[in-house]
Amino acid sequence: MNSFGQIYRLTTFGESHGPALGGVIDGMPAGVKIDMESLTRAMQRRRPGQSDIVTARNESDSVQLLSGIFEGITTGTPIGFIIPNADNRSADYEAMRHTFRPSHADFTYQMKYGMRDHRGGGRSSARETASRIVGGELAAQALRQFGISINAYTSQVGDIALDAPYTCLDFNAIDSNPVRCPDPLKAQEMERLIRAVKAKGDTIGGVVTCIVRGCPAGLGEPVFDKLQARLAQAMLSINAAKGFDYGTGFASAAMRGSEAIDTFTQASDGTIHTLTNNSGGIQGGISNGEDIYFRVVFKPVATLLREIDTVTDKGETTKLHARGRHDPCVVPRAVPIVEAMAAMVILDSLLLQRTTRL
Amino acid sequence: MNSFGQIYRLTTFGESHGPALGGVIDGMPAGVKIDMESLTRAMQRRRPGQSDIVTARNESDSVQLLSGIFEGITTGTPIGFIIPNADNRSADYEAMRHTFRPSHADFTYQMKYGMRDHRGGGRSSARETASRIVGGELAAQALRQFGISINAYTSQVGDIALDAPYTCLDFNAIDSNPVRCPDPLKAQEMERLIRAVKAKGDTIGGVVTCIVRGCPAGLGEPVFDKLQARLAQAMLSINAAKGFDYGTGFASAAMRGSEAIDTFTQASDGTIHTLTNNSGGIQGGISNGEDIYFRVVFKPVATLLREIDTVTDKGETTKLHARGRHDPCVVPRAVPIVEAMAAMVILDSLLLQRTTRL
Amino acid sequence: MNSFGQIYRLTTFGESHGPALGGVIDGMPAGVKIDMESLTRAMQRRRPGQSDIVTARNESDSVQLLSGIFEGITTGTPIGFIIPNADNRSADYEAMRHTFRPSHADFTYQMKYGMRDHRGGGRSSARETASRIVGGELAAQALRQFGISINAYTSQVGDIALDAPYTCLDFNAIDSNPVRCPDPLKAQEMERLIRAVKAKGDTIGGVVTCIVRGCPAGLGEPVFDKLQARLAQAMLSINAAKGFDYGTGFASAAMRGSEAIDTFTQASDGTIHTLTNNSGGIQGGISNGEDIYFRVVFKPVATLLREIDTVTDKGETTKLHARGRHDPCVVPRAVPIVEAMAAMVILDSLLLQRTTRL
Amino acid sequence: MNSFGQIYRLTTFGESHGPALGGVIDGMPAGVKIDMESLTRAMQRRRPGQSDIVTARNESDSVQLLSGIFEGITTGTPIGFIIPNADNRSADYEAMRHTFRPSHADFTYQMKYGMRDHRGGGRSSARETASRIVGGELAAQALRQFGISINAYTSQVGDIALDAPYTCLDFNAIDSNPVRCPDPLKAQEMERLIRAVKAKGDTIGGVVTCIVRGCPAGLGEPVFDKLQARLAQAMLSINAAKGFDYGTGFASAAMRGSEAIDTFTQASDGTIHTLTNNSGGIQGGISNGEDIYFRVVFKPVATLLREIDTVTDKGETTKLHARGRHDPCVVPRAVPIVEAMAAMVILDSLLLQRTTRL
Repeated sequence: MNSFGQIYRLTTFGESHGPALGGVIDGMPAGVKIDMESLTRAMQRRRPGQSDIVTARNESDSVQLLSGIFEGITTGTPIGFIIPNADNRSADYEAMRHTFRPSHADFTYQMKYGMRDHRGGGRSSARETASRIVGGELAAQALRQFGISINAYTSQVGDIALDAPYTCLDFNAIDSNPVRCPDPLKAQEMERLIRAVKAKGDTIGGVVTCIVRGCPAGLGEPVFDKLQARLAQAMLSINAAKGFDYGTGFASAAMRGSEAIDTFTQASDGTIHTLTNNSGGIQGGISNGEDIYFRVVFKPVATLLREIDTVTDKGETTKLHARGRHDPCVVPRAVPIVEAMAAMVILDSLLLQRTTRL
Repeated sequence: MNSFGQIYRLTTFGESHGPALGGVIDGMPAGVKIDMESLTRAMQRRRPGQSDIVTARNESDSVQLLSGIFEGITTGTPIGFIIPNADNRSADYEAMRHTFRPSHADFTYQMKYGMRDHRGGGRSSARETASRIVGGELAAQALRQFGISINAYTSQVGDIALDAPYTCLDFNAIDSNPVRCPDPLKAQEMERLIRAVKAKGDTIGGVVTCIVRGCPAGLGEPVFDKLQARLAQAMLSINAAKGFDYGTGFASAAMRGSEAIDTFTQASDGTIHTLTNNSGGIQGGISNGEDIYFRVVFKPVATLLREIDTVTDKGETTKLHARGRHDPCVVPRAVPIVEAMAAMVILDSLLLQRTTRL
Repeated sequence: MNSFGQIYRLTTFGESHGPALGGVIDGMPAGVKIDMESLTRAMQRRRPGQSDIVTARNESDSVQLLSGIFEGITTGTPIGFIIPNADNRSADYEAMRHTFRPSHADFTYQMKYGMRDHRGGGRSSARETASRIVGGELAAQALRQFGISINAYTSQVGDIALDAPYTCLDFNAIDSNPVRCPDPLKAQEMERLIRAVKAKGDTIGGVVTCIVRGCPAGLGEPVFDKLQARLAQAMLSINAAKGFDYGTGFASAAMRGSEAIDTFTQASDGTIHTLTNNSGGIQGGISNGEDIYFRVVFKPVATLLREIDTVTDKGETTKLHARGRHDPCVVPRAVPIVEAMAAMVILDSLLLQRTTRL
Repeated sequence: MNSFGQIYRLTTFGESHGPALGGVIDGMPAGVKIDMESLTRAMQRRRPGQSDIVTARNESDSVQLLSGIFEGITTGTPIGFIIPNADNRSADYEAMRHTFRPSHADFTYQMKYGMRDHRGGGRSSARETASRIVGGELAAQALRQFGISINAYTSQVGDIALDAPYTCLDFNAIDSNPVRCPDPLKAQEMERLIRAVKAKGDTIGGVVTCIVRGCPAGLGEPVFDKLQARLAQAMLSINAAKGFDYGTGFASAAMRGSEAIDTFTQASDGTIHTLTNNSGGIQGGISNGEDIYFRVVFKPVATLLREIDTVTDKGETTKLHARGRHDPCVVPRAVPIVEAMAAMVILDSLLLQRTTRL
């Protein structure tokens, strides 16, 4: 329910306005050297307030690792962690105690639990994803030992799309601009669009593309836990995500089989590869050793900085005028979250694969 | 690994060329009256050989329910079932013992397990989905008792798309044509396209749209098991599926928040609803009581009825000329599988929801 | 619910009076050569009607493996199996439709599910354990490849106890008598006692002792899934089991620490062992490489071949006179079930252990 | 691995010598009023240093609940908590860095993970059970709403056993003495024995008996997750536990069926009960509405306050003289842990039972 993964398993807790959020990472193998600076950088990437195109909320996002690491090395026992909630203006939200914000989780939480913590969205706050960064970054540190790297970037904002294939992009440029788009010109266009939208108190959607490189063949399970199925669950579990596709994805609908199949070839070292990669690195639910790539689409967030109509928990109509600190576009901050979720899926699959043969 | 669901849980087994495939349905509540005719119809809908636009393989697909039902009513104990494999021409596949078909699971199974059952794709055969129909149809029978219904249809084949919103369609017309498209004119166009593609020994992709009606508010879990995340896993676990989106889906990227939010309103009976349903019936990962709708895209299947280049398991280049019985377009037969997977997700969520409040 | 194990996972279904029972073994590694004769022998050992001290029911107990094995070798995909129910005299049980047999599951099933299949105890029948033999025997076949063997035997019937330590016993003698006690003299005493009890229409309890040899150090999880905890669950899940202990077990209550600790020593090959084995091969929840040994106590079964008082499902008092075929002592037939459950726990732990280190 | 339970699910983390231990409680239903004083009392009961017959270690054991509770009521979202480690004398343990204490987890952790945190036993420390008290006490608070109560007490220390049936005891007297034995005279005898053993630097074992009252019929799953199987796993997962039995338990071996069966009777209110309760409140794996009772045996702890022989991690013989603060008998402090584990099993079963019928 609040856990993710079968072997490498993250369990999270926490609301945006309690004393802290945090979680437990279970199944981390013993012997991984932990790079705390890398973890801090990862947390910074998700953090609000990085630029004026994301929310100005000043969350501390400092992680305290409480267990499972001894003298800098993982011990194989669970890693508990907390992220204190520093900047809580609960009063900002008092007006929302009996009001359901449209397209938020207020109404559905009320229907599910018969009650809710209305402050800042409670458990539904995007702040929850900070815990995912911890789980994902530590997974990524383990994956690096196997030569596996994961990179995501903003590939679309509004109708401005980066159509160049990922193989033509310089991933080092991703963090060179606040949009996290590796193409500098597109990045400028996207940034301009976000500012224009923000100026109107409105928000806008977009797409994140993610690439996993160095993943060995053989990961994933044949039926319900196909690698793409696990990735799809992971991505659709991110706040505001509305869709996922991999390889040729939705474009597959209009393709012929003769143009979609990936012909095999033998490399000079004797290994078998494919000439094209329409499969997105996964065939029959199992990785084939090529790059894995997929897209995640995010809706424009529902918090508008303008007056809107809504209802109270008694169904009465009312007005709402959010004045807080909100992202006009969540896509740039979703980039590290997509990477984190992908890292957990891949590490979990890698560990599970070890049980597959006698 | 070969199980799906937390409370209502289907575990499947079986290859296309063993004596039988089958499974176990665990967590079916006691007291559901089983309609065997409805189950037989459901199996027929997935079955090959229904028309000349799908594979002519003559699979029996007769299900034997072996337990968990007493005098026509479920007892709460697990329902085991088998589906015997009747029409097995193993010899058809002997040539493939050492050959990897492109964009199939042959190579990846070999890399995962160090071996494989090469006959008919073994476990990766789409025949595996017959077991899902059993799990899904029995789930659907339970859901009907709660007034929940699930309908899927073909909404795109190649570049022929049915753009009309689902609310304008007559779901009774879905099965009136072999394409399973509720719009008769579009259905004819799609059918013509499939025949043309088939004539060239080629295949083509498409999209299935699915609608869940009558689902109460409150289903789904807030974080990793958001209702859309469970649905996404379910759909991406279907053979040949390449993507999933719900509500406004991928179109969300280009939307403004001001056009995407669903404004609340109070119905005459006092219940709260939304004026629009861009959210696709799910907000914050939890159903809101509106219709749930989503899309699943399927690639053109990789088995072409023409000569193609590929490699052996030693990496040597070879030619392959499939002559078997294959679908030029899997989308019509994917329709009942999408419904089945959705039914299992919804019933599982419904049962889990009962544990949520004191 | 009807599944056992995390990686090597058995899911079972079936009542004593349906067409068949069976199950699915998931997580069996690829590459295990299956010995069908060994499986048949294992089924024979559990089977009723082996001698006149166990029930004369003539169950076929022939297993059909339906998947997951190709050319005699496991493929890594799930192994489905069924065991047809051959000898079903449902009419024997019609009288019990509205009667609750004392100390059976009739009343509790009715309270749990609001209904029940009253024939032969339905799902609560000991026949369900036939499926466990399949799961356990195949696990044992995999374990043999790692040099791990598991042997259980009857160590007590009524007040006749075999007090000799297991290290003094000849395990080859276990199956030389119907009681499955490796000490021939004790076996005779036990057999006489069972016959005497049977002559009175009564039943009697006993104890099974089990030893796992060749188990490497490192198996088991530190906290909730301690190896002894998993074994305890496994054993208490067997019908009629009332208790479990391992190592010095219940005798530990009266021991001093100074006599209970196992002093370490270094063997000539440099490996570390213990001089004694009060720990029963498990320390801190993890195997230490010494023999694992434990006991399971079984109650006298509740079906007496004499007239007894009981109530109907309306609470009215009534008489019951069982005349069917029942075991006067389940312990001899419990021996292979204890072995089967132990084998599944050990193989599961062995596979899970592979994920523990980087 | 570090989680327990299917619906009500506790995940724990933490070593005795890190900054904190803690955990996450998932699946707590919304609407439970949390009694913090009751939680503090529960923590006090497990805490070391309560009397001179238990370890004098001064652990703070103050729990911080970090989420999942709003205005004193559970919200249905996960409850994260930490218990800071206050009194860490890591230096006490430096000598043990390369030494394996006999009958501890030092050697087995090393074999499992290839490394270990040697300070205070790391994850294997009994301090880990503090987290279980949090999970168990909050479960108990929920159970009280259903009229279910759980009481455990010390029923044996060394060879001093309290043979009186639990129905003759005054549970209010349990905490009136440091041994937690409700019979004052037996308690004095036990206390004297513990002091005598302690004076010799030795330790002693014992037995805890636990009773669950008010449990409705119908809890538990028929096969692998029988209620007694779940309880057995729960109890054997407690440090130093060596065995478990329920109802007539190990004494069943010597019983006849005719004396063991529990004859049904109808109470004046029409409900069906049993005249005796040899079944210990569970039949066929499912609660029958009578009191559930069981025993857990604990070994004498392995830390002796005297010089003993052992080996280093290189296998060399060495001497060890523990001088820390250790329990001469863990049984009194095990009492609340047994209750906590039982509470979690019962609440989990109660919630799961809600999914059983249509």
